[in-house]
Amino acid sequence: MSIHPENPLAPLFDSGDFDAIRDMAQDLHSADIAEHLSQFDADDAVVMLATLPIERQAEIIDYCELEYRLKLAQELGAQRLAALMNQMSHDDRVDILKALPEKLANQTLQAMAQVEREDIRRLASYPEGSAGAIMTTEYAIVQPELTVQQAIEKLRREAPMKETINRAYIVDEQRRLLGSVKLQTLILSSAQDRVSDIMEQHTHAVRIDDHQEYVAQQIAKYDVIALPVLDAEDRLVGIVTHDDAMDVLQQETTEDFHKTGTVGKLSGSILHASGWLLYRKRISWLVLLVFANIFSGAGIAYFEDTISAYVALLFFLPLLVGSGGNAGSQSATLMVRALATGEVVLKDWSRMLGRELLVAAGLGLTMALAVSLLGVFRGGPEIALVVALTMVLVVMVGSLIGMSLPFVLSRFKLDPATASAPLITTIADAMGVIIYFSIATYILVL
Amino acid sequence: MSIHPENPLAPLFDSGDFDAIRDMAQDLHSADIAEHLSQFDADDAVVMLATLPIERQAEIIDYCELEYRLKLAQELGAQRLAALMNQMSHDDRVDILKALPEKLANQTLQAMAQVEREDIRRLASYPEGSAGAIMTTEYAIVQPELTVQQAIEKLRREAPMKETINRAYIVDEQRRLLGSVKLQTLILSSAQDRVSDIMEQHTHAVRIDDHQEYVAQQIAKYDVIALPVLDAEDRLVGIVTHDDAMDVLQQETTEDFHKTGTVGKLSGSILHASGWLLYRKRISWLVLLVFANIFSGAGIAYFEDTISAYVALLFFLPLLVGSGGNAGSQSATLMVRALATGEVVLKDWSRMLGRELLVAAGLGLTMALAVSLLGVFRGGPEIALVVALTMVLVVMVGSLIGMSLPFVLSRFKLDPATASAPLITTIADAMGVIIYFSIATYILVL
Repeated sequence: MSIHPENPLAPLFDSGDFDAIRDMAQDLHSADIAEHLSQFDADDAVVMLATLPIERQAEIIDYCELEYRLKLAQELGAQRLAALMNQMSHDDRVDILKALPEKLANQTLQAMAQVEREDIRRLASYPEGSAGAIMTTEYAIVQPELTVQQAIEKLRREAPMKETINRAYIVDEQRRLLGSVKLQTLILSSAQDRVSDIMEQHTHAVRIDDHQEYVAQQIAKYDVIALPVLDAEDRLVGIVTHDDAMDVLQQETTEDFHKTGTVGKLSGSILHASGWLLYRKRISWLVLLVFANIFSGAGIAYFEDTISAYVALLFFLPLLVGSGGNAGSQSATLMVRALATGEVVLKDWSRMLGRELLVAAGLGLTMALAVSLLGVFRGGPEIALVVALTMVLVVMVGSLIGMSLPFVLSRFKLDPATASAPLITTIADAMGVIIYFSIATYILVL
Repeated sequence: MSIHPENPLAPLFDSGDFDAIRDMAQDLHSADIAEHLSQFDADDAVVMLATLPIERQAEIIDYCELEYRLKLAQELGAQRLAALMNQMSHDDRVDILKALPEKLANQTLQAMAQVEREDIRRLASYPEGSAGAIMTTEYAIVQPELTVQQAIEKLRREAPMKETINRAYIVDEQRRLLGSVKLQTLILSSAQDRVSDIMEQHTHAVRIDDHQEYVAQQIAKYDVIALPVLDAEDRLVGIVTHDDAMDVLQQETTEDFHKTGTVGKLSGSILHASGWLLYRKRISWLVLLVFANIFSGAGIAYFEDTISAYVALLFFLPLLVGSGGNAGSQSATLMVRALATGEVVLKDWSRMLGRELLVAAGLGLTMALAVSLLGVFRGGPEIALVVALTMVLVVMVGSLIGMSLPFVLSRFKLDPATASAPLITTIADAMGVIIYFSIATYILVL
């Protein structure tokens, strides 16, 4: 971790001017302070944080990366951490406590009020990656029988404890979700109206065990600021907010990206990841693909006689097998992304097959034309024919594999993103070698 | 376009039961209706839409994909479209008008009120991909000298014309942004307070010509529902809302994804894209890479004597050059994504270089170990030595290229995502051929 030369906190901290730090904090957004602060060692950061009001400290910590939050937590100690946790957003504090060493986590929990402790324990019990794990319990509820005026007064009283009161949820006595109402609607209604008369009844909700990516996609689909989360008995247990949904989408996309490059799941910053971690995330696919490539080698060895007789064939080997892999990578990329966004589903495969083959034939013919002149020039008309025929076939086979593999993986409940460019290239290489030398043997030797 | 068998509108439409369609619409979210409706031909959809109130029609059209919206617009005709446009969100209606045939667009504009027409013309003038092009002009403003009570009354009056009043912006007489205030803060303040006393002064804003991806990242960073947009004179001209930011992030990510698979920019659905469109988006990179692969072929041709003398070398060719490409693709993927999310910036390259070489050396040694036994078995100890040495080197060179190319592209203001797996593989292949046969010639022949 190093401090950027333009970090505005650096000169103030070096000269010990804590009043100036407090003043500067008033002019900056907490997200920006979090960014500057994260460049300092945690023990220095904790000293600077202490100059600010406790609500502000909590807000800044909420904006730090999880890794850094953990370092801060360990510097703060159980007592101060517990005081801060009372101010932090409910979903973020659970993430911290789950990652802390057990002893510190327990001490911190002990230092908190009973009701907060129970809230944390409940949120911590939901599995990683579920709606329960990313939701917050700081939502506003109002009863259907309240008048608009009573509802607004209730929201005014409770606002300081809630993440947002832009929308309040209406529940019955068993806490089952009846509907919701925007703060804006309450303001626009007359004071004596009943909440039950003005509420929106068809409030879209998700289930506590829904996958976080699904929840985020629902928030994007319905353009809402938050979605309520229900348990198995239809009771309201939390809300997921749009900012957490955005984070989830970013994080899931990064995972997909890495997978398409055969890199394992990396949590935390790539900038600060250790070499050993990166090694472990990369080695397994590399070794697997080495052995997969043996098929190509075996293919070449099998056709040794043809190759020895027509060494000129080797010149075209890289561009022919490469083209199959490249066309396949294109097809796979298109399908992996379309499956991830939900734009395409399993049953669409057969609908798109015909078009894919047509496109691939077109691509193959164009590329065959491009190389056949080179074929005549370097090997004569017979080799040119072999090269052109091979090109059309490898591009079609490569595209077909690239387009289909994501669907096959998806069909067997595996992640389509596993159909990475390197994997497709390796498969296409082996097919390419066999196609190329089979055609060559048939035309030139027999 | 085909109608899904479970589409709830299908039986109602077939039996001509339009009352039932209207009833069903009351129970469904507009996003869901849009989804069901989009499966119908536009002329049928327009008939069904006509059964609903005009505000609802506009909301449903807002949720349709742009492609489908255009089809609806053409069915609706200028008069009905103009009436609907008065109800639609300001950013969405501009997108439609920009894409409509000029004659229909002009007729529609003529049928709208002067003030709406000017708003559309102004929004339409901002370049594609800028903050101006995705912002809306339906934000709420209040003057700093108003009391809380006056501000709330103003918001109540104007709410029906605004996209959101959750936050109101405070501007001076020249419309320069002074700050902002949450509706929630207004509700919590006492009626006689001045807006200037309770507003948040440091409201983060973006510029009208900022890139849409930057704007979306700012919304994600600051966890806000909307960001104000300023012109060159610091005047407030619009806001970008969180739902549009989410769409931008999704769309930019899809573009990046496609680029890493060497597929050109595709707007609209892959499911309904024409074969000819897909051909055009794929052919240029494929042909380019064919010619790049000629370097590998030339490398092989150059070492023909060595190969003829030691044909066993060919067996290892695919796995050696493949490994360089695979390791390079991993490194490129990590960097392309980290640069896209802003986690890593240009100057971080040198910091990460040492770690990359160390990791690559570790990967190369592991893979060399994995194949050297195979080398002894198939070619004897000398070939095993050649293969092992080559493996370490190609993995290191491939990783170095894969890691550095995204930075080089970024340095020259090109998109780092151009460093696609197929491009890296092609470069690594050529390097691999040269490294392999150079080492082989040196150890075996000389």
